[in-house]
Amino acid sequence: MWTLPPTDSVLQVLSFIAVAAQAMTAALAAGKRSMDWAGVCMLGCITALGGGTIRDVLLGHYPLLWVLHPIYLAIAVVAAIVTIVLARLVHRLRLAFLVLDAIGLVVFTMAGCDVAWQVDASLPIVIVAGMITGCAGGVLRDILCNEVPLLFRSELYASVSVVTGLFYATAFGLNVNDHLWTVLTFALGLTLRLLAIRYKWEMPKFVFSGEER
Amino acid sequence: MWTLPPTDSVLQVLSFIAVAAQAMTAALAAGKRSMDWAGVCMLGCITALGGGTIRDVLLGHYPLLWVLHPIYLAIAVVAAIVTIVLARLVHRLRLAFLVLDAIGLVVFTMAGCDVAWQVDASLPIVIVAGMITGCAGGVLRDILCNEVPLLFRSELYASVSVVTGLFYATAFGLNVNDHLWTVLTFALGLTLRLLAIRYKWEMPKFVFSGEER
Amino acid sequence: MWTLPPTDSVLQVLSFIAVAAQAMTAALAAGKRSMDWAGVCMLGCITALGGGTIRDVLLGHYPLLWVLHPIYLAIAVVAAIVTIVLARLVHRLRLAFLVLDAIGLVVFTMAGCDVAWQVDASLPIVIVAGMITGCAGGVLRDILCNEVPLLFRSELYASVSVVTGLFYATAFGLNVNDHLWTVLTFALGLTLRLLAIRYKWEMPKFVFSGEER
Repeated sequence: MWTLPPTDSVLQVLSFIAVAAQAMTAALAAGKRSMDWAGVCMLGCITALGGGTIRDVLLGHYPLLWVLHPIYLAIAVVAAIVTIVLARLVHRLRLAFLVLDAIGLVVFTMAGCDVAWQVDASLPIVIVAGMITGCAGGVLRDILCNEVPLLFRSELYASVSVVTGLFYATAFGLNVNDHLWTVLTFALGLTLRLLAIRYKWEMPKFVFSGEER
Repeated sequence: MWTLPPTDSVLQVLSFIAVAAQAMTAALAAGKRSMDWAGVCMLGCITALGGGTIRDVLLGHYPLLWVLHPIYLAIAVVAAIVTIVLARLVHRLRLAFLVLDAIGLVVFTMAGCDVAWQVDASLPIVIVAGMITGCAGGVLRDILCNEVPLLFRSELYASVSVVTGLFYATAFGLNVNDHLWTVLTFALGLTLRLLAIRYKWEMPKFVFSGEER
Repeated sequence: MWTLPPTDSVLQVLSFIAVAAQAMTAALAAGKRSMDWAGVCMLGCITALGGGTIRDVLLGHYPLLWVLHPIYLAIAVVAAIVTIVLARLVHRLRLAFLVLDAIGLVVFTMAGCDVAWQVDASLPIVIVAGMITGCAGGVLRDILCNEVPLLFRSELYASVSVVTGLFYATAFGLNVNDHLWTVLTFALGLTLRLLAIRYKWEMPKFVFSGEER
């Protein structure tokens, strides 16, 4: 979902891990709906790469990352197939996946902010772009699984993405966009997300039962 | 959903009202599905700005309005939060909302026609662009709420948009695109929509029970 | 969903037939959900033209075919209306539709590969573009009908598209992109799809019942 200088190998590796992790959680969701193998692979690709794709389409930022580097599609497909083969194991490693997914959320968010910044978007749009990159893939997954998106219903997920983006984008404003700031943002976002999972932090819900139409 | 010269302050105000009204109806729909606050705000933005976004992406018309003017996002978010706080009141003012929503439908449709006209689309596409701008936001809302879009099932909504677009676009063909025509179109569209609500006009339904696969 | 030299009249006619066939199957699906006439027409257009539209948006390939040639919209709308009027007959001709739909899948796939090739996409993307063109319209139809996409659950549909695309794209690699190859690809894809329908070939399913969250 983002472009990195080849020297930035840590972030590059994290990005591959994030794509794989998101494809794997999507594959498990596909398995619960008895999709066939082709469907599992497609859902994995759409979930892992959908957020960045929507961001780029909204910003008119072409060509898309996976069109330029189809290796990302390959990673998502391989991750989906591995999940099919090792479903029980993947399920048992649920905790590890939550961490990988959290890494993905933060890395994707930062990458989304970077892209928006590169195309000279304003600060609010930089943050929105980060949130879309981090969250929209999961929304597509839930739509295709015929569910109300989990993102809209529970957990601090979008909010972690917004806070991460806010913190990260502040650096753009201050012109201190160096490696230290990237590391700080990553640590902040990841900590927030893991705390939210550990202590089951949630946004308040809006429950309304009247007929709206 | 559209760009207006700053002098056209009436239409500008109507457009803000329309965005707010659509975000509010979306927020009520979100409340019926117990979404959390972040979800309510996101659904509000997607519903209010989704129609124009889809139109612009289909026409390749960049940058998107809300990317250029994030104030539209802010209006939708504020409207969604107000709805959370004042849900009972908003619900009771249902009638007022139907009128605001109707204004939104007509204003969005005209704005969509304008944009398509500016990018030299043919007349059929001008009308389709108006319809997408007016209607697609509600379709996104219903998909995200996991329902068959209301648009496809009932009421004269798309049809009002098409008639409004046809009437409005006729003026482009005749080169009489002045303020009078805008006012006339607005009055025609709004009247049609309100009559459709008042007298429960509906398109005939196509009911078919055979297995298609 | 594709551009053809006017001399290529056979493929042109096949493309019109494919658009009509996909709009008709969509109309039957709409009838099962009691959509109104406007909804049936919209679902027909989205299903028939959605695959190519998504491909073009992802590749940044503007203007869209139906924006340039609104006749495609007209064909889809007319096909949807014919289906409303002749629902029983259309239903009884189910077998013929499966063949038309198979033709559509293969023709759309080849057209998608052509477009991606024209914009200098790499070979994997050429194949993905073919698959999106052939399959994504049906996914949109199922999402709008509030179902888990059939594509992800059963039948060799995406796989036929991938094999067709692979075979077709090989010719690009070998620089033998002439009419014979087009005919061969068409025959191969159509045969595969019809055999898959006849003998109910299916991909293995991935069934997983654990909680993934």
